[in-house]
Amino acid sequence: MSVADINYDSSMVRWQPNPRERLQEAALALYGERGFENTTVAEIAERAGLTERTFFRHYADKREVLFGGADAFTEALAGTVANAPASEAPIDAVTAGLEAAAALPQDREFSRRRQAIIAASPELQERELSKFASLSASLAGTLRERGLGEPAATLTAELAIAVFRVAFERWIEGSDDQDFRQLIRESLDQLRAVTAGA
Amino acid sequence: MSVADINYDSSMVRWQPNPRERLQEAALALYGERGFENTTVAEIAERAGLTERTFFRHYADKREVLFGGADAFTEALAGTVANAPASEAPIDAVTAGLEAAAALPQDREFSRRRQAIIAASPELQERELSKFASLSASLAGTLRERGLGEPAATLTAELAIAVFRVAFERWIEGSDDQDFRQLIRESLDQLRAVTAGA
Repeated sequence: MSVADINYDSSMVRWQPNPRERLQEAALALYGERGFENTTVAEIAERAGLTERTFFRHYADKREVLFGGADAFTEALAGTVANAPASEAPIDAVTAGLEAAAALPQDREFSRRRQAIIAASPELQERELSKFASLSASLAGTLRERGLGEPAATLTAELAIAVFRVAFERWIEGSDDQDFRQLIRESLDQLRAVTAGA
Repeated sequence: MSVADINYDSSMVRWQPNPRERLQEAALALYGERGFENTTVAEIAERAGLTERTFFRHYADKREVLFGGADAFTEALAGTVANAPASEAPIDAVTAGLEAAAALPQDREFSRRRQAIIAASPELQERELSKFASLSASLAGTLRERGLGEPAATLTAELAIAVFRVAFERWIEGSDDQDFRQLIRESLDQLRAVTAGA
Protein backbone atom coordinates (compact mmCIF):
# COMPACT_ATOMS: atom_id res chain seq x y z
CA MET A 1 0.00 0.00 0.00
CA SER A 2 1.51 3.36 -1.02
CA VAL A 3 1.13 6.78 0.51
CA ALA A 4 -1.04 7.71 -2.50
CA ASP A 5 -3.43 4.90 -1.62
CA ILE A 6 -3.72 6.12 1.93
CA ASN A 7 -4.49 9.66 0.79
CA TYR A 8 -7.08 8.36 -1.62
CA ASP A 9 -8.71 6.28 1.08
CA SER A 10 -8.81 9.10 3.61
CA SER A 11 -10.46 11.46 1.12
CA MET A 12 -13.14 8.82 0.43
CA VAL A 13 -14.03 8.43 4.07
CA ARG A 14 -13.79 12.10 4.97
CA TRP A 15 -16.61 13.35 7.15
CA GLN A 16 -19.81 14.13 5.31
CA PRO A 17 -23.06 15.55 6.66
CA ASN A 18 -25.64 12.90 7.42
CA PRO A 19 -27.98 11.84 4.59
CA ARG A 20 -30.82 14.05 5.82
CA GLU A 21 -28.64 17.15 5.72
CA ARG A 22 -27.12 16.23 2.37
CA LEU A 23 -30.58 15.80 0.88
CA GLN A 24 -31.68 19.11 2.31
CA GLU A 25 -28.65 20.91 0.96
CA ALA A 26 -29.13 19.33 -2.49
CA ALA A 27 -32.84 20.22 -2.51
CA LEU A 28 -32.24 23.83 -1.52
CA ALA A 29 -29.57 24.22 -4.18
CA LEU A 30 -31.85 22.80 -6.88
CA TYR A 31 -34.94 24.76 -5.78
CA GLY A 32 -32.85 27.91 -5.90
CA GLU A 33 -31.39 27.10 -9.33
CA ARG A 34 -34.46 25.90 -11.22
CA GLY A 35 -37.43 26.52 -8.94
CA PHE A 36 -39.31 24.19 -6.61
CA GLU A 37 -41.86 23.13 -9.25
CA ASN A 38 -39.17 22.14 -11.74
CA THR A 39 -37.19 19.94 -9.37
CA THR A 40 -37.84 16.21 -8.95
CA VAL A 41 -37.02 13.93 -6.04
CA ALA A 42 -34.82 11.90 -8.40
CA GLU A 43 -32.74 14.98 -9.14
CA ILE A 44 -32.39 15.82 -5.45
CA ALA A 45 -31.22 12.30 -4.65
CA GLU A 46 -28.76 12.35 -7.54
CA ARG A 47 -27.30 15.70 -6.49
CA ALA A 48 -26.87 14.37 -2.95
CA GLY A 49 -25.24 11.18 -4.24
CA LEU A 50 -28.00 9.12 -2.64
CA THR A 51 -30.96 7.06 -3.83
CA GLU A 52 -34.62 8.07 -4.09
CA ARG A 53 -35.34 5.38 -1.55
CA THR A 54 -33.06 7.13 0.93
CA PHE A 55 -34.84 10.39 0.19
CA PHE A 56 -38.21 8.90 1.09
CA ARG A 57 -36.79 7.43 4.29
CA HIS A 58 -36.17 11.01 5.45
CA TYR A 59 -38.90 13.07 3.79
CA ALA A 60 -42.49 12.27 2.78
CA ASP A 61 -42.19 14.48 -0.31
CA LYS A 62 -40.14 17.33 -1.72
CA ARG A 63 -42.12 19.94 0.21
CA GLU A 64 -41.22 18.38 3.55
CA VAL A 65 -37.57 19.24 3.02
CA LEU A 66 -38.64 22.83 3.63
CA PHE A 67 -41.19 22.27 6.37
CA GLY A 68 -39.63 19.50 8.45
CA GLY A 69 -38.53 21.92 11.19
CA ALA A 70 -42.10 22.83 12.13
CA ASP A 71 -42.53 19.92 14.53
CA ALA A 72 -39.71 20.95 16.85
CA PHE A 73 -41.06 24.47 16.79
CA THR A 74 -44.59 23.37 17.65
CA GLU A 75 -43.29 21.18 20.44
CA ALA A 76 -41.27 24.00 21.99
CA LEU A 77 -44.11 26.51 21.76
CA ALA A 78 -47.10 24.39 22.74
CA GLY A 79 -45.09 22.30 25.23
CA THR A 80 -43.93 25.38 27.11
CA VAL A 81 -47.44 26.83 27.19
CA ALA A 82 -48.90 23.53 28.39
CA ASN A 83 -46.35 23.29 31.22
CA ALA A 84 -46.54 26.92 32.34
CA PRO A 85 -47.83 27.42 35.91
CA ALA A 86 -51.62 27.64 36.02
CA SER A 87 -51.31 31.03 37.71
CA GLU A 88 -49.44 32.54 34.76
CA ALA A 89 -51.43 34.90 32.53
CA PRO A 90 -51.99 33.46 29.01
CA ILE A 91 -49.89 36.18 27.38
CA ASP A 92 -46.97 35.37 29.69
CA ALA A 93 -47.26 31.64 29.01
CA VAL A 94 -47.30 32.37 25.28
CA THR A 95 -44.33 34.72 25.58
CA ALA A 96 -42.37 31.98 27.35
CA GLY A 97 -43.43 29.55 24.61
CA LEU A 98 -42.29 31.88 21.83
CA GLU A 99 -38.97 32.42 23.57
CA ALA A 100 -38.49 28.66 23.90
CA ALA A 101 -39.19 28.28 20.18
CA ALA A 102 -36.84 31.17 19.40
CA ALA A 103 -34.10 29.50 21.46
CA LEU A 104 -34.07 26.44 19.18
CA PRO A 105 -30.91 26.23 17.09
CA GLN A 106 -31.60 28.25 13.97
CA ASP A 107 -29.49 28.48 10.84
CA ARG A 108 -30.13 31.97 9.52
CA GLU A 109 -28.48 31.32 6.17
CA PHE A 110 -30.66 28.24 5.65
CA SER A 111 -33.75 30.20 6.72
CA ARG A 112 -32.95 32.98 4.24
CA ARG A 113 -32.57 30.56 1.35
CA ARG A 114 -35.72 28.70 2.37
CA GLN A 115 -37.71 31.94 2.57
CA ALA A 116 -36.61 33.02 -0.90
CA ILE A 117 -37.68 29.66 -2.35
CA ILE A 118 -41.09 29.87 -0.67
CA ALA A 119 -41.60 33.45 -1.84
CA ALA A 120 -41.09 32.27 -5.44
CA SER A 121 -43.79 29.56 -5.30
CA PRO A 122 -47.52 30.11 -4.72
CA GLU A 123 -47.86 26.41 -3.84
CA LEU A 124 -45.24 26.71 -1.11
CA GLN A 125 -46.75 29.92 0.19
CA GLU A 126 -50.09 28.16 0.61
CA ARG A 127 -48.33 25.31 2.34
CA GLU A 128 -46.66 27.71 4.74
CA LEU A 129 -49.98 29.40 5.52
CA SER A 130 -51.54 25.99 6.19
CA LYS A 131 -48.72 25.08 8.54
CA PHE A 132 -49.18 28.28 10.51
CA ALA A 133 -52.95 27.77 10.61
CA SER A 134 -52.52 24.25 12.05
CA LEU A 135 -50.02 25.56 14.55
CA SER A 136 -52.42 28.30 15.63
CA ALA A 137 -55.29 25.83 16.02
CA SER A 138 -53.12 23.52 18.09
CA LEU A 139 -51.93 26.36 20.33
CA ALA A 140 -55.53 27.52 20.83
CA GLY A 141 -56.36 23.97 21.99
CA THR A 142 -53.49 24.08 24.49
CA LEU A 143 -54.72 27.42 25.82
CA ARG A 144 -58.27 26.07 26.20
CA GLU A 145 -56.87 23.15 28.20
CA ARG A 146 -55.31 25.75 30.49
CA GLY A 147 -58.80 27.13 31.06
CA LEU A 148 -58.81 30.08 28.66
CA GLY A 149 -62.24 30.54 27.05
CA GLU A 150 -63.16 31.32 23.48
CA PRO A 151 -62.73 33.54 21.56
CA ALA A 152 -59.76 34.56 23.75
CA ALA A 153 -57.89 31.28 23.14
CA THR A 154 -58.09 31.50 19.33
CA LEU A 155 -57.23 35.21 19.34
CA THR A 156 -54.23 34.69 21.64
CA ALA A 157 -52.97 31.86 19.45
CA GLU A 158 -53.34 33.96 16.28
CA LEU A 159 -51.53 36.81 17.97
CA ALA A 160 -48.69 34.51 19.05
CA ILE A 161 -48.20 33.18 15.53
CA ALA A 162 -48.29 36.70 14.08
CA VAL A 163 -45.65 37.84 16.57
CA PHE A 164 -43.45 34.88 15.73
CA ARG A 165 -43.75 35.35 11.97
CA VAL A 166 -43.01 39.05 12.12
CA ALA A 167 -40.03 38.57 14.44
CA PHE A 168 -38.74 35.71 12.28
CA GLU A 169 -38.90 37.79 9.11
CA ARG A 170 -37.08 40.65 10.78
CA TRP A 171 -34.46 38.25 12.09
CA ILE A 172 -33.89 36.77 8.63
CA GLU A 173 -33.56 40.18 7.02
CA GLY A 174 -31.56 41.75 9.82
CA SER A 175 -27.93 42.11 10.65
CA ASP A 176 -25.93 39.47 12.50
CA ASP A 177 -26.17 41.11 15.90
CA GLN A 178 -29.96 40.93 16.12
CA ASP A 179 -31.17 38.52 18.71
CA PHE A 180 -34.28 36.58 17.71
CA ARG A 181 -35.67 36.51 21.25
CA GLN A 182 -35.21 40.25 21.55
CA LEU A 183 -37.16 40.72 18.30
CA ILE A 184 -40.01 38.62 19.72
CA ARG A 185 -40.11 40.78 22.84
CA GLU A 186 -40.15 43.93 20.73
CA SER A 187 -43.01 42.63 18.58
CA LEU A 188 -45.04 41.76 21.68
CA ASP A 189 -44.40 45.22 23.10
CA GLN A 190 -45.58 46.85 19.88
CA LEU A 191 -48.71 44.72 19.87
CA ARG A 192 -49.43 45.71 23.46
CA ALA A 193 -48.99 49.39 22.61
CA VAL A 194 -51.33 49.08 19.61
CA THR A 195 -54.12 47.31 21.49
CA ALA A 196 -53.78 49.84 24.32
CA GLY A 197 -54.57 52.54 21.74
CA ALA A 198 -51.10 54.08 21.43
CA MET B 1 -105.45 32.95 -26.68
CA SER B 2 -106.93 30.99 -23.76
CA VAL B 3 -106.63 31.56 -20.03
CA ALA B 4 -104.35 28.52 -19.89
CA ASP B 5 -101.99 30.19 -22.34
CA ILE B 6 -101.85 33.33 -20.25
CA ASN B 7 -101.06 31.33 -17.12
CA TYR B 8 -98.36 29.42 -18.99
CA ASP B 9 -96.83 32.61 -20.31
CA SER B 10 -96.84 34.35 -16.95
CA SER B 11 -95.11 31.38 -15.31
CA MET B 12 -92.40 31.51 -17.98
CA VAL B 13 -91.63 35.15 -17.40
CA ARG B 14 -91.93 35.09 -13.61
CA TRP B 15 -89.14 36.95 -11.84
CA GLN B 16 -85.93 35.07 -11.44
CA PRO B 17 -82.79 36.07 -9.60
CA ASN B 18 -80.16 37.60 -11.85
CA PRO B 19 -77.71 35.23 -13.60
CA ARG B 20 -74.93 35.82 -11.09
CA GLU B 21 -77.16 34.81 -8.19
CA ARG B 22 -78.60 31.83 -10.06
CA LEU B 23 -75.10 30.58 -10.83
CA GLN B 24 -74.07 31.04 -7.22
CA GLU B 25 -77.09 29.17 -5.95
CA ALA B 26 -76.54 26.32 -8.44
CA ALA B 27 -72.85 26.12 -7.51
CA LEU B 28 -73.51 26.00 -3.77
CA ALA B 29 -76.14 23.30 -4.22
CA LEU B 30 -73.79 21.16 -6.32
CA TYR B 31 -70.74 21.71 -4.07
CA GLY B 32 -72.90 20.62 -1.14
CA GLU B 33 -74.26 17.55 -2.91
CA ARG B 34 -71.13 16.15 -4.55
CA GLY B 35 -68.22 18.19 -3.23
CA PHE B 36 -66.35 21.12 -4.75
CA GLU B 37 -63.72 18.95 -6.47
CA ASN B 38 -66.37 16.80 -8.18
CA THR B 39 -68.36 19.67 -9.66
CA THR B 40 -67.67 21.15 -13.11
CA VAL B 41 -68.50 24.60 -14.47
CA ALA B 42 -70.62 22.87 -17.15
CA GLU B 43 -72.73 21.27 -14.43
CA ILE B 44 -73.17 24.55 -12.58
CA ALA B 45 -74.31 26.32 -15.75
CA GLU B 46 -76.70 23.49 -16.60
CA ARG B 47 -78.25 23.52 -13.11
CA ALA B 48 -78.73 27.28 -13.35
CA GLY B 49 -80.28 26.95 -16.83
CA LEU B 50 -77.51 29.09 -18.30
CA THR B 51 -74.50 28.58 -20.56
CA GLU B 52 -70.86 28.11 -19.59
CA ARG B 53 -70.14 31.34 -21.42
CA THR B 54 -72.50 33.17 -19.08
CA PHE B 55 -70.75 31.54 -16.12
CA PHE B 56 -67.37 32.89 -17.24
CA ARG B 57 -68.83 36.36 -17.74
CA HIS B 58 -69.54 36.42 -14.00
CA TYR B 59 -66.80 34.28 -12.42
CA ALA B 60 -63.19 33.61 -13.41
CA ASP B 61 -63.45 30.00 -12.19
CA LYS B 62 -65.52 27.80 -9.92
CA ARG B 63 -63.61 28.92 -6.82
CA GLU B 64 -64.53 32.56 -7.38
CA VAL B 65 -68.21 31.75 -6.77
CA LEU B 66 -67.18 31.32 -3.13
CA PHE B 67 -64.67 34.15 -2.83
CA GLY B 68 -66.23 36.92 -4.91
CA GLY B 69 -67.41 38.82 -1.81
CA ALA B 70 -63.88 39.51 -0.61
CA ASP B 71 -63.45 42.67 -2.69
CA ALA B 72 -66.34 44.54 -1.10
CA PHE B 73 -65.03 43.49 2.29
CA THR B 74 -61.48 44.69 1.55
CA GLU B 75 -62.80 47.97 0.24
CA ALA B 76 -64.90 48.61 3.34
CA LEU B 77 -62.09 47.70 5.74
CA ALA B 78 -59.08 49.29 4.03
CA GLY B 79 -61.12 52.24 2.72
CA THR B 80 -62.34 53.14 6.19
CA VAL B 81 -58.85 52.84 7.67
CA ALA B 82 -57.38 54.99 4.88
CA ASN B 83 -60.00 57.70 5.42
CA ALA B 84 -59.88 57.75 9.23
CA PRO B 85 -58.66 61.02 10.74
CA ALA B 86 -54.88 61.14 11.06
CA SER B 87 -55.25 61.77 14.78
CA GLU B 88 -57.11 58.49 15.35
CA ALA B 89 -55.10 55.70 17.01
CA PRO B 90 -54.45 52.75 14.64
CA ILE B 91 -56.55 50.39 16.75
CA ASP B 92 -59.51 52.80 16.55
CA ALA B 93 -59.16 53.21 12.79
CA VAL B 94 -59.04 49.42 12.43
CA THR B 95 -62.07 49.00 14.71
CA ALA B 96 -64.02 51.45 12.55
CA GLY B 97 -62.88 49.54 9.45
CA LEU B 98 -63.99 46.20 10.87
CA GLU B 99 -67.35 47.66 11.81
CA ALA B 100 -67.80 49.04 8.32
CA ALA B 101 -67.02 45.60 6.88
CA ALA B 102 -69.40 44.00 9.38
CA ALA B 103 -72.15 46.41 8.31
CA LEU B 104 -72.08 45.11 4.72
CA PRO B 105 -75.20 43.14 3.85
CA GLN B 106 -74.49 39.56 4.91
CA ASP B 107 -76.54 36.47 4.17
CA ARG B 108 -75.93 34.22 7.15
CA GLU B 109 -77.49 31.17 5.54
CA PHE B 110 -75.26 31.58 2.47
CA SER B 111 -72.24 32.10 4.73
CA ARG B 112 -73.03 28.92 6.66
CA ARG B 113 -73.31 26.81 3.50
CA ARG B 114 -70.17 28.39 2.09
CA GLN B 115 -68.23 27.68 5.28
CA ALA B 116 -69.27 24.01 5.29
CA ILE B 117 -68.12 23.62 1.67
CA ILE B 118 -64.75 25.23 2.43
CA ALA B 119 -64.28 23.07 5.54
CA ALA B 120 -64.71 19.95 3.35
CA SER B 121 -61.97 20.90 0.86
CA PRO B 122 -58.25 21.37 1.63
CA GLU B 123 -57.87 23.26 -1.67
CA LEU B 124 -60.55 25.76 -0.64
CA GLN B 125 -59.11 26.11 2.84
CA GLU B 126 -55.77 27.05 1.33
CA ARG B 127 -57.51 29.52 -0.94
CA GLU B 128 -59.26 31.09 2.03
CA LEU B 129 -55.98 31.40 3.94
CA SER B 130 -54.38 33.04 0.89
CA LYS B 131 -57.24 35.53 0.63
CA PHE B 132 -56.86 36.50 4.28
CA ALA B 133 -53.08 36.78 3.89
CA SER B 134 -53.49 39.19 0.93
CA LEU B 135 -56.05 41.15 2.85
CA SER B 136 -53.71 41.43 5.83
CA ALA B 137 -50.80 42.55 3.63
CA SER B 138 -52.99 45.18 1.98
CA LEU B 139 -54.25 46.47 5.33
CA ALA B 140 -50.67 46.66 6.65
CA GLY B 141 -49.83 48.81 3.61
CA THR B 142 -52.74 51.14 4.36
CA LEU B 143 -51.57 51.46 7.97
CA ARG B 144 -48.02 52.27 6.86
CA GLU B 145 -49.40 55.00 4.62
CA ARG B 146 -51.04 56.45 7.73
CA GLY B 147 -47.57 56.63 9.27
CA LEU B 148 -47.58 53.48 11.41
CA GLY B 149 -44.13 51.86 11.44
CA GLU B 150 -43.14 48.23 11.20
CA PRO B 151 -43.59 45.75 12.75
CA ALA B 152 -46.60 47.51 14.30
CA ALA B 153 -48.42 47.84 10.95
CA THR B 154 -48.15 44.14 10.08
CA LEU B 155 -49.06 43.07 13.62
CA THR B 156 -52.09 45.37 13.72
CA ALA B 157 -53.28 44.07 10.36
CA GLU B 158 -52.87 40.42 11.46
CA LEU B 159 -54.74 41.21 14.66
CA ALA B 160 -57.59 42.86 12.71
CA ILE B 161 -57.99 39.87 10.40
CA ALA B 162 -57.92 37.47 13.37
CA VAL B 163 -60.62 39.49 15.12
CA PHE B 164 -62.76 39.52 12.00
CA ARG B 165 -62.41 35.77 11.37
CA VAL B 166 -63.20 34.85 14.95
CA ALA B 167 -66.22 37.17 15.09
CA PHE B 168 -67.42 35.91 11.71
CA GLU B 169 -67.23 32.26 12.79
CA ARG B 170 -69.13 33.02 15.99
CA TRP B 171 -71.73 34.93 14.00
CA ILE B 172 -72.22 32.04 11.56
CA GLU B 173 -72.57 29.51 14.36
CA GLY B 174 -74.65 31.72 16.61
CA SER B 175 -78.32 32.35 17.14
CA ASP B 176 -80.29 34.86 15.11
CA ASP B 177 -80.14 37.63 17.67
CA GLN B 178 -76.36 37.94 17.63
CA ASP B 179 -75.16 41.14 16.08
CA PHE B 180 -72.00 40.80 14.01
CA ARG B 181 -70.69 44.23 14.98
CA GLN B 182 -71.19 43.42 18.64
CA LEU B 183 -69.19 40.20 18.20
CA ILE B 184 -66.34 42.21 16.67
CA ARG B 185 -66.33 44.56 19.63
CA GLU B 186 -66.30 41.64 22.05
CA SER B 187 -63.38 40.00 20.25
CA LEU B 188 -61.41 43.23 20.34
CA ASP B 189 -62.11 43.60 24.05
CA GLN B 190 -60.89 40.07 24.70
CA LEU B 191 -57.74 40.72 22.73
CA ARG B 192 -57.09 43.88 24.73
CA ALA B 193 -57.56 41.98 27.98
CA VAL B 194 -55.16 39.23 26.88
CA THR B 195 -52.40 41.60 25.76
CA ALA B 196 -52.81 43.56 29.00
CA GLY B 197 -52.02 40.32 30.87
CA ALA B 198 -55.52 39.50 32.16
